Amino acid sequence: MSEFRLHCFADSGNAYKVALMLELTGQDWEAVFVDFFNGQTRQQDWRDAVNDQGEVPVLEHAGKRLTQSALILEYLAEHTGRFEARNEEERREIWRWMLFDNHKFTSYYATLRFLYCLKQSGETQVTGFLRERATAAYGIVNAHLADRSFMVGERPTIADLSLAGYVFMPEDTGITLKTFSHIEAWKARLRALPGWKPPYELMPGEVAAS
Amino acid sequence: MSEFRLHCFADSGNAYKVALMLELTGQDWEAVFVDFFNGQTRQQDWRDAVNDQGEVPVLEHAGKRLTQSALILEYLAEHTGRFEARNEEERREIWRWMLFDNHKFTSYYATLRFLYCLKQSGETQVTGFLRERATAAYGIVNAHLADRSFMVGERPTIADLSLAGYVFMPEDTGITLKTFSHIEAWKARLRALPGWKPPYELMPGEVAAS
Repeated sequence: MSEFRLHCFADSGNAYKVALMLELTGQDWEAVFVDFFNGQTRQQDWRDAVNDQGEVPVLEHAGKRLTQSALILEYLAEHTGRFEARNEEERREIWRWMLFDNHKFTSYYATLRFLYCLKQSGETQVTGFLRERATAAYGIVNAHLADRSFMVGERPTIADLSLAGYVFMPEDTGITLKTFSHIEAWKARLRALPGWKPPYELMPGEVAAS
Repeated sequence: MSEFRLHCFADSGNAYKVALMLELTGQDWEAVFVDFFNGQTRQQDWRDAVNDQGEVPVLEHAGKRLTQSALILEYLAEHTGRFEARNEEERREIWRWMLFDNHKFTSYYATLRFLYCLKQSGETQVTGFLRERATAAYGIVNAHLADRSFMVGERPTIADLSLAGYVFMPEDTGITLKTFSHIEAWKARLRALPGWKPPYELMPGEVAAS
């Protein structure tokens, strides 16, 4: 058995944050496919056994079961000594952006993508609402990256990996991404990191489960 | 000048999390009113001077300017030695729930309340969507509290204060709160803490600003 086991599925950008961290740091890890689209995370037995919050990613390591991508990233940064904060000030700045990511940047974009691209809801009041909120969050991150190469401390950290959850997903959410030129430049820098892979190459999708 | 200055307004449950922590721990603090409803947090000069993420709460202390309620709560727990984690395992469990709170529990409820109760949008696809998501998040917290007095470690911690952001707001969002009996019992336990006050008594509202 691998040292790390990541409960995930290819469409989950929240799981991708962790998968990418494991890959970039060269860990011995394996994916445990979660059948989200058939309701596995809503089943009580899965919640009792794997995660009472009903979400992926879940990482198993050394007898521990960890959830919440930001917390897992911090755990892996400490474990590997990579993409980590160099001091307390950086630690707070990293957490500040991981929280913003969880609340707004990843959250609105991921939900928009889920409804509009995966469930193909078409244009609704809800997709309009989510697109407006996601666009505002993109604007704030874009402004922050205007005079920086990475989110914190001029080198890649777990703050970047957290924000990167959904930015490499190929689906068109109706947001004109190229207007966020600083985000686009930052994505190119992430893509250039040794070992980088897109979500669908790192984690199993629906086909792999059958 | 007080030791702590909290940029806030009465309607913000995210600011309330911090105001309640300051009050329960008996700090010397003052409120700096933020005119959210007239767009102050969207103004570029406010973002440049106070918070580039465009949000309250912001806490000023000892020359530092801190943002993101979960991070501020952790800072205050360390500073005061109150409501804090007793070990690494508790620290992770506290963060796990603060992240869930930021992503889902506070987030969906606060946005529903803003649209439905404060902006009086009426019933729309968006309020329906948010109510469904908020209700699911309430269900997860309610289940966690079924056999516990508080979220972590059988005593109040900053995890409880984070989740408490909007639960004492008086407006009716259309969610039948009494069906979440374990949350209701937990709210009564929080309300019984020495020094507890509701949001509108702790922070200035629109009238106080004029």
